[in-house]
Amino acid sequence: MVEGAAVRAGTSGTVGGRKVKKQAERTDMYEILKGMRVVEGASFIAAPICCQHLVGLGAEVIRFDMIGGGPDFNRWPIAPSGLSLYWESLNKGKKSVAIDLASREGRELAIAIATAPGEAGGLFVTNYPVEGFLAHERLARRRADMITVRVMGWADGRSGVDYTINAVTGLPGMTGPAALADGEPVNHVLPAWDLIAGSYAAFALLAAERRRRDTGQGGEVLVPLSDVAATSLGHTGMIAEAIVGGADRARVGNDLFGALGRDFATADGRRLMLVAITPKQWTSLVEALDIAATVSAIEAELGGSFAREGDRYRHRSRLFDVIARAAGSLTLDEAAARLDRTGACWSIYRPLSQAITEEPGFVAGNPVFAERAHPAGHAYPTPGAAGTFPGLDRASAPRAPRLGEHTDEVLADLLGMSSGEIARLHDAGTVAGPTH
Amino acid sequence: MVEGAAVRAGTSGTVGGRKVKKQAERTDMYEILKGMRVVEGASFIAAPICCQHLVGLGAEVIRFDMIGGGPDFNRWPIAPSGLSLYWESLNKGKKSVAIDLASREGRELAIAIATAPGEAGGLFVTNYPVEGFLAHERLARRRADMITVRVMGWADGRSGVDYTINAVTGLPGMTGPAALADGEPVNHVLPAWDLIAGSYAAFALLAAERRRRDTGQGGEVLVPLSDVAATSLGHTGMIAEAIVGGADRARVGNDLFGALGRDFATADGRRLMLVAITPKQWTSLVEALDIAATVSAIEAELGGSFAREGDRYRHRSRLFDVIARAAGSLTLDEAAARLDRTGACWSIYRPLSQAITEEPGFVAGNPVFAERAHPAGHAYPTPGAAGTFPGLDRASAPRAPRLGEHTDEVLADLLGMSSGEIARLHDAGTVAGPTH
Repeated sequence: MVEGAAVRAGTSGTVGGRKVKKQAERTDMYEILKGMRVVEGASFIAAPICCQHLVGLGAEVIRFDMIGGGPDFNRWPIAPSGLSLYWESLNKGKKSVAIDLASREGRELAIAIATAPGEAGGLFVTNYPVEGFLAHERLARRRADMITVRVMGWADGRSGVDYTINAVTGLPGMTGPAALADGEPVNHVLPAWDLIAGSYAAFALLAAERRRRDTGQGGEVLVPLSDVAATSLGHTGMIAEAIVGGADRARVGNDLFGALGRDFATADGRRLMLVAITPKQWTSLVEALDIAATVSAIEAELGGSFAREGDRYRHRSRLFDVIARAAGSLTLDEAAARLDRTGACWSIYRPLSQAITEEPGFVAGNPVFAERAHPAGHAYPTPGAAGTFPGLDRASAPRAPRLGEHTDEVLADLLGMSSGEIARLHDAGTVAGPTH
Repeated sequence: MVEGAAVRAGTSGTVGGRKVKKQAERTDMYEILKGMRVVEGASFIAAPICCQHLVGLGAEVIRFDMIGGGPDFNRWPIAPSGLSLYWESLNKGKKSVAIDLASREGRELAIAIATAPGEAGGLFVTNYPVEGFLAHERLARRRADMITVRVMGWADGRSGVDYTINAVTGLPGMTGPAALADGEPVNHVLPAWDLIAGSYAAFALLAAERRRRDTGQGGEVLVPLSDVAATSLGHTGMIAEAIVGGADRARVGNDLFGALGRDFATADGRRLMLVAITPKQWTSLVEALDIAATVSAIEAELGGSFAREGDRYRHRSRLFDVIARAAGSLTLDEAAARLDRTGACWSIYRPLSQAITEEPGFVAGNPVFAERAHPAGHAYPTPGAAGTFPGLDRASAPRAPRLGEHTDEVLADLLGMSSGEIARLHDAGTVAGPTH
């Protein structure tokens, strides 16, 4: 069960009483955070994404899971092999340790891994409940400078996931075709709150670690999805809007609120997203579509100024008519040439499968991605860090571990266990190596 | 024009040749990042949100804008006073400097502010183009350890905003009522890519600064919305899904993909979001709605196991019927009592205005928010940091500055300019104090 264990490149040895074949596995990306060791005890999106960002900048991330997989191990999308494309995409480049977390000894092991000594360790990212065996106070008793970043649903500990939090934001009532009945909700497909919480948690972890470097003090950081959502609505002015305006924002279909933007069809049946928020974007769009005269006439008739985004929004139906006519008289290629020539802000609506192969620089031809084979049995474009540090070596995107692939390595190297101790834990069913 | 300048609490003096009335203004929140000084030269959402996160943890953020406001200064929503609720919500607790950025001297001033000396300075967050007067290389010539975090549209420098990037992700074709025609896009209302990019940029800034502390080296970090979107789709398995499955995810309305979740109506006409991704969430839901017998009968009939989220998704239409009947026979209060008793994962769809006042712990009664008056002329619940550090003093949420409110303070304190020099810059129209 340990023959596939990926251990530090160039080393070799015996683990768990068996000869281990070592792989020269490059799991780091940038080396910005090299030397930092983070332990992840988590499931689903936000906390794993947090650690995926850390992996992307070169931190070592050790993830522990229940033997056989936690509640997210079989989450869709799944591959024909039955393994989850979701799980492997969220855990690339992490070391995977499989532990029986229902047993007392297994829980002790998880705590020992999270609190293992080392200057750049003592960093734990989790979505386990505030109370319970992975409570921060318990960990801090083992390691005084422990930092725990805990993603939560609701701030008060109530169960909440991206999709239930999203329902209270009011956004489902503002999304979708204007013809839908008031109060008919339209859910989002992108788990936006999870993704925002994930990158915020990575930020909060580095902030807490910076403070620890200066003061020696650890501590806990709570990142509830409910607070991530509420503060996002606050920071973007939507809470102010609801209170000052005394009303909820109306559903306006695909119209961009407060400026000019919408989808438009081309003569050959493609669909464009055209946006003019800034004056520069507006003049570029007008020039590209050659509609200056018509627009001026409407401006003169209405007495506003379309140099102001608010006037473009107020009178958008008039402008949409003009733009729809202009865009509808051009093929996609013709429109693209004109819009690019003037530097307009636009894009083509694409199904994801087409975006992956055809959208220049999005996935294909993007150095952020590398083709990589993963345990579910397929190779596909695999992303590294979202940020680019010009001049530094990005290296290649890491593959996902097999569940339990690094169990023995972590027990030996991090906890200093002997082969005999590790073998005993296997025999007792307290830990497991890779089984798939 | 400087009489309202909010200068450091407890000090007083003469600036720009005029006596300055000092305010005891508390603009910090947590003090996790106290001492760190970040300069923001940016507009719209992602970069300002990045700095809003930094403000929330106690960093000093100095934002410079064009005199009279940049391209985002009048962005909707706007207050009856004509001032933007959007701008002020995105710039709370920042120091505002107004500069004529079209002039050579104004640009020099912006560069001098961004590159001002000080161990915890030399941090610049921007969405200005890679080339141009705020290019990283130019700043690094002034300050060798400069760190520039640059939010971009497309990674290759093409114009792109949240709404155009979103069009290429394929998500608009997966969102909204299943009855919509294939290819009919549904835009999102939440600028999700901006918000993810904003928190990722804050993470990347701290990562770069951590490296600088260890090595003395600065550098640039590019955070393109296109890469934020593409990596998010990759990290959550959607790129793997499109490639391995060979097809795009179908539009399934409000159904949660791969598990069980949807909106359901109550007997009194309210709408619930009910979710069962984990086994625990499923058993809690079944128990709350008292549908165990019916569910078992369907399970026996179909031969699957609803303990597996994939089987719940495959057979969701059968399960939705049962749940819709059960939820539809209960009032909201009855359903809430049952769902809370079993610890189910659920929420109520609310318009935002109602969520602000009625959703427990979301905004009202949430210590993350404080009622605060802002320059547009209204007081409203104002968020601080999304993360909570138990045991540390959160202090109160900061108000937004008036545009140019801190011009004189920054010129005097950061650049060490004399009153005479500052007065000359005012007279030349190179800088301005607050005008509203």
